[in-house]
Amino acid sequence: MEYERPQFARLSRYADEADRDVIDTVSGNPDWEPPAALRDGLRASADGDPESFQYPPSEGLDALRAEIATRRNVPRERVIVTNGAGEANHLALAAALTEADGDEVLLTDPVYPYYPAKTELLGGTPRLLPTEPDGSLDLSRFRAAAGDDTTAILLNSPNNPTGAVYPPETIKATAELADDVGATLIVDEVYDHFDYTGRFESALTLDRDDVVVTTAFSKSMAITGLRVGYAVLPEPLLSHARTRHMLVNVTTSRPAQAAVLRALRETEPGYYAHNRELLRDRIGAFADALDDAGAEYTTPEGAFYVLARFDDFPGTTENAERLIDEAGVAAMPGATFGDARADWFRFALVTPRATEAAERLAAFF
Amino acid sequence: MEYERPQFARLSRYADEADRDVIDTVSGNPDWEPPAALRDGLRASADGDPESFQYPPSEGLDALRAEIATRRNVPRERVIVTNGAGEANHLALAAALTEADGDEVLLTDPVYPYYPAKTELLGGTPRLLPTEPDGSLDLSRFRAAAGDDTTAILLNSPNNPTGAVYPPETIKATAELADDVGATLIVDEVYDHFDYTGRFESALTLDRDDVVVTTAFSKSMAITGLRVGYAVLPEPLLSHARTRHMLVNVTTSRPAQAAVLRALRETEPGYYAHNRELLRDRIGAFADALDDAGAEYTTPEGAFYVLARFDDFPGTTENAERLIDEAGVAAMPGATFGDARADWFRFALVTPRATEAAERLAAFF
Repeated sequence: MEYERPQFARLSRYADEADRDVIDTVSGNPDWEPPAALRDGLRASADGDPESFQYPPSEGLDALRAEIATRRNVPRERVIVTNGAGEANHLALAAALTEADGDEVLLTDPVYPYYPAKTELLGGTPRLLPTEPDGSLDLSRFRAAAGDDTTAILLNSPNNPTGAVYPPETIKATAELADDVGATLIVDEVYDHFDYTGRFESALTLDRDDVVVTTAFSKSMAITGLRVGYAVLPEPLLSHARTRHMLVNVTTSRPAQAAVLRALRETEPGYYAHNRELLRDRIGAFADALDDAGAEYTTPEGAFYVLARFDDFPGTTENAERLIDEAGVAAMPGATFGDARADWFRFALVTPRATEAAERLAAFF
Repeated sequence: MEYERPQFARLSRYADEADRDVIDTVSGNPDWEPPAALRDGLRASADGDPESFQYPPSEGLDALRAEIATRRNVPRERVIVTNGAGEANHLALAAALTEADGDEVLLTDPVYPYYPAKTELLGGTPRLLPTEPDGSLDLSRFRAAAGDDTTAILLNSPNNPTGAVYPPETIKATAELADDVGATLIVDEVYDHFDYTGRFESALTLDRDDVVVTTAFSKSMAITGLRVGYAVLPEPLLSHARTRHMLVNVTTSRPAQAAVLRALRETEPGYYAHNRELLRDRIGAFADALDDAGAEYTTPEGAFYVLARFDDFPGTTENAERLIDEAGVAAMPGATFGDARADWFRFALVTPRATEAAERLAAFF
């Protein structure tokens, strides 16, 4: 089972041990400030009475679920607060695989490598379908692949690693396809605050009761380490997801939940807009420098990753190590994300040195 | 699937809605102060740099794992920091069920009801073996039941709900039995700080490399809501447990880990001793009042639960509701914990009103 974090960990270690300065564009950890209200929320937790250190309800603090439900315009009962988007996706896949016939999960190629690994852990069979060269979904491939064996279709939009933002009509058509074959559409929207097209719409706006949306505050609030996310689940999957959440984790860490609740309530839209603009600017500057490097690349519509391809230099682990040693840039090999982009590298622009990294690449190639 | 928390939630709601004052002895939430250093640790997290809000290593903060490894005298590599003892037990059972033949998990009756529910979630078969009337293990039953189908034996010592503390020679004999049949012994020691016999020894002191110990800081530091625990696993189970931990949760919430690390380092033994004495006193006073109620009961050697039986008043949910309405005491029906103690009730003495609860019982019976 090959998944991102060990690969990430291996490359990070290699970069740390390199005998030179290396710019890390491997990890997807935001490098900006969390909301001030989030810090305030942690401080308030530190000062709480003893009862506030005890189990919150398994599905999440009542006030946090209510806040999420109001913002997303869904019944509170459909919201389960999870240990990040990681657990949200695990619960969604587990519920779909348990409640439906079939064991196949349709995924895109390139794919966030946790998805096939999570599917296999749960006894399911991942099936990767290549996207178009620009990262958009090839619906005809999904139509051809969907059938009795299909249990779930799992999409990520805005997408890691392609940066694609799937249009609402694509999500709608995929939901209808899932419905036709008795499968569940799961849409991981963890990058929803990083949409540069202005056209992103949550799958929740479809107002269908058979779609799962998973997400987290990890990226939008720059708190990957706090582990607070949630799933909005349709009624038939709720019971399994609730039971599994309780039997695996009991509940999500309470100070983290309380801090996110405070940040949700008190953070101005400007906080999110500022970071989105910061990333948009980085992407632009990075792309300009990639032009100088003669690279082929995708300009992301969302999220904060850039896929790039260099002539006669495929995205293998060996070449990723050469980039570290000879260019001073750590990037993720495209093969980590499936076959479709095995010739490419993924650059995560969550470092203030993103432009400098691209300039180093230009100098190297 | 019947497990404790929904039962707990149902009875708590019933008690909340009762038209009278009710003393809650249902929940297992400590009612005393967490360590001062734990609060300091949360405050320090609130003031950390942006990087300190990002993913820690999947298996836990390096310093926390090192601190645990030193204290437990085990290699750091064998420690996985988990989302409470709940996840630690899930990982241990999952690893045992995945890596060994057979699907049977031997448990005691009475049993902490999460254990059979967790086993079933993972596709295993729980098999409950009655303990002796005083709560001690009947090893002959385990010997008779263990065989090719046995994948794991899961014990809890000090025990919830019986209060039994299994002697080291019993743990040793059980570990040898597990070894004989190719099964894994898992010992959940989450109540290890609440041993009133002075004879409790961790299964880690056996110095065997085939035993799993699971635990958490939830009870010892009065922080059930922070979700920080750990598993110490033998080498053959490590890979599966690590992978599953990463694919389900990625990692455990970082402010909670950092706070526990600080509390581990800075909390004096007196903190734990004080709370242990507090509970021992409560147990004594509660038992005295139960004598007045004419009840049969077990005096716990550890943990903070008392099982009691009243003539012609079996431990059903219906009678638990009567106790709420007519005695003003909420207790857990014994049937929640299996068949062996279906006539009994479990009282959790984590309320300053424990003695008053027993006096109410004396007045009622």
